[in-house]
Amino acid sequence: MPKRIHLVASLALGVCLILSGLAGAQTDPLPSWNDGPAKQGIVKFVQAATDSSSPQHVPPAARIAVFDNDGTLWSEQPMYFQGFFAFDRVKALAPKHPEWKTQQPFKGILENDMKAVAAAGEKGLVEVIGATHSGMTTDEFAQTVKDWVAQAKHPRFKRPYTDLVFQPMLELLAYLRANGFKTYIVSGGGVDFMRVFAEEVYGIPPEQVVGSVGETKLEMRNGKPALLKLPKINLVDDKAGKPVGIHRFIGRRPVLAFGNSDGDQQMLEWTAAGDGLRFMGLVRHTDGEREWAYDRQSSIGRLDKALDEATQKGWTVVDMKRDWKVIYPFQK
Amino acid sequence: MPKRIHLVASLALGVCLILSGLAGAQTDPLPSWNDGPAKQGIVKFVQAATDSSSPQHVPPAARIAVFDNDGTLWSEQPMYFQGFFAFDRVKALAPKHPEWKTQQPFKGILENDMKAVAAAGEKGLVEVIGATHSGMTTDEFAQTVKDWVAQAKHPRFKRPYTDLVFQPMLELLAYLRANGFKTYIVSGGGVDFMRVFAEEVYGIPPEQVVGSVGETKLEMRNGKPALLKLPKINLVDDKAGKPVGIHRFIGRRPVLAFGNSDGDQQMLEWTAAGDGLRFMGLVRHTDGEREWAYDRQSSIGRLDKALDEATQKGWTVVDMKRDWKVIYPFQK
Repeated sequence: MPKRIHLVASLALGVCLILSGLAGAQTDPLPSWNDGPAKQGIVKFVQAATDSSSPQHVPPAARIAVFDNDGTLWSEQPMYFQGFFAFDRVKALAPKHPEWKTQQPFKGILENDMKAVAAAGEKGLVEVIGATHSGMTTDEFAQTVKDWVAQAKHPRFKRPYTDLVFQPMLELLAYLRANGFKTYIVSGGGVDFMRVFAEEVYGIPPEQVVGSVGETKLEMRNGKPALLKLPKINLVDDKAGKPVGIHRFIGRRPVLAFGNSDGDQQMLEWTAAGDGLRFMGLVRHTDGEREWAYDRQSSIGRLDKALDEATQKGWTVVDMKRDWKVIYPFQK
Repeated sequence: MPKRIHLVASLALGVCLILSGLAGAQTDPLPSWNDGPAKQGIVKFVQAATDSSSPQHVPPAARIAVFDNDGTLWSEQPMYFQGFFAFDRVKALAPKHPEWKTQQPFKGILENDMKAVAAAGEKGLVEVIGATHSGMTTDEFAQTVKDWVAQAKHPRFKRPYTDLVFQPMLELLAYLRANGFKTYIVSGGGVDFMRVFAEEVYGIPPEQVVGSVGETKLEMRNGKPALLKLPKINLVDDKAGKPVGIHRFIGRRPVLAFGNSDGDQQMLEWTAAGDGLRFMGLVRHTDGEREWAYDRQSSIGRLDKALDEATQKGWTVVDMKRDWKVIYPFQK
């Protein structure tokens, strides 16, 4: 670039940065968060991370922030939403599987007999996931999820599942990105499931979604290569699998991690064990009216050991009832 | 942002964009490429992809470009460089493994008897990779690679292996990034190996490196969580494994793919099978003087079927001797 043009460009760019800085100072980046230790802790962390004169400054490339999905970015009651998807798929596929009429847990799903489904345990669940998440190409599966997201409704709120995302967490994601963080999902949910809606709903592109992975196999379909989804697990991205998934997909240690359950404990520990500035957060479901209240005794999203560790180590615990002005975007 | 400030900011930003546009028009982004069909094809592709008035415009989020590493971004002769690393590790670890003195292919490596090593075949190679790429934490392994990269020298050029990257490809990576592309490595090489130097050498951050994956296991070491590398393969990111790796790690189909061997054929086919503007490229090793000349008969980086397909389908074949002014940065 010729020197004079370069100078003018630099000045112009400087003006942009100063103006956007002034504008930013006037706006609360987290309007749905009540003032309190959680919000203050987040803002303090972001300010220290981005202040290049701070000894705690985090270089832009290292600004990796990871978020659990179920119970952290959206609700997970009365069942993980991907479970509702699987059950709806069993119902849709039932005409092709007459044997399911007598075979648990499929029989229970078709008859809405949740006791029978629960009795089939984890082995039953794996069978249901296998039957509904394999045997098609990745493109076909993505289309099925897209169609389901567009029409399925949550039983309590009678709204699309993707309406049940947490407004304060959307603000946190945007705030982090505006400050140069790369935001990732690191969830036990299926990666092929979440990637269908993560960009539209959370602003998180497919390549920043880490989740449980099923094996796929390349084959030709109508003269074109396609990836067939197989009923075989490659990675369970939960508990001790979360650091494995983070290392495998991202290849660096996050500086911020947010979860809500014991399934996130190892991810928070993995994040905490790095050098320099860190932020570990837990969303605690304390609002039985606006959302759900559950912790140590819940079979879905149990928060017990991770809560003890958070208390002990001073991690940030977000109390949904106390800390959040609204829960869902439609309540704004 | 108040309206007047917003207007000023927009104008200032406009000035920046116009100036950088003017400056860009004056500079050749690919100075180490001779003018010819390969260079012209690349520039034409990038211009069409970024021209928002073109019917072939590619939205920024979809600008995913994938590159094989060995033979595409750096040399791969007389052996994949990660092979030299493994052999050097065998020599370094030999004092702790007296049994290797009599056990092939370790004996052959220690005695520089490449015939014996070759005779042990793929099974032998897997044993060597297992012995040198597992049994330590991911952090320890990264440090070992870092140390090796800093001191090991290529037998022909007597220079660090990371000097043997292709200057024209560095320019191509930078050109794509300057035009809003996300550049990825998608290689059969080990992901934990490449991520150590990919950012410094190629400007490709760890989270944009896809490669072969070994299993890891979370365990506590001195009260801190660590990931132990296990002698078990999770993904071979080569041939039919490349589309699998792309789908798993990136979750969208690339619009540009560059390889150099039959190991990249499925990646190129996977890229070609998408809708809209595409670019498929092969680096052909035709320069026995400045680099190496090999193709259909080579056991390393064989280019045979993919070359036939490229010819048939009009993919871009880069002839290193004809198309590149320099091969390595140190020759500039």
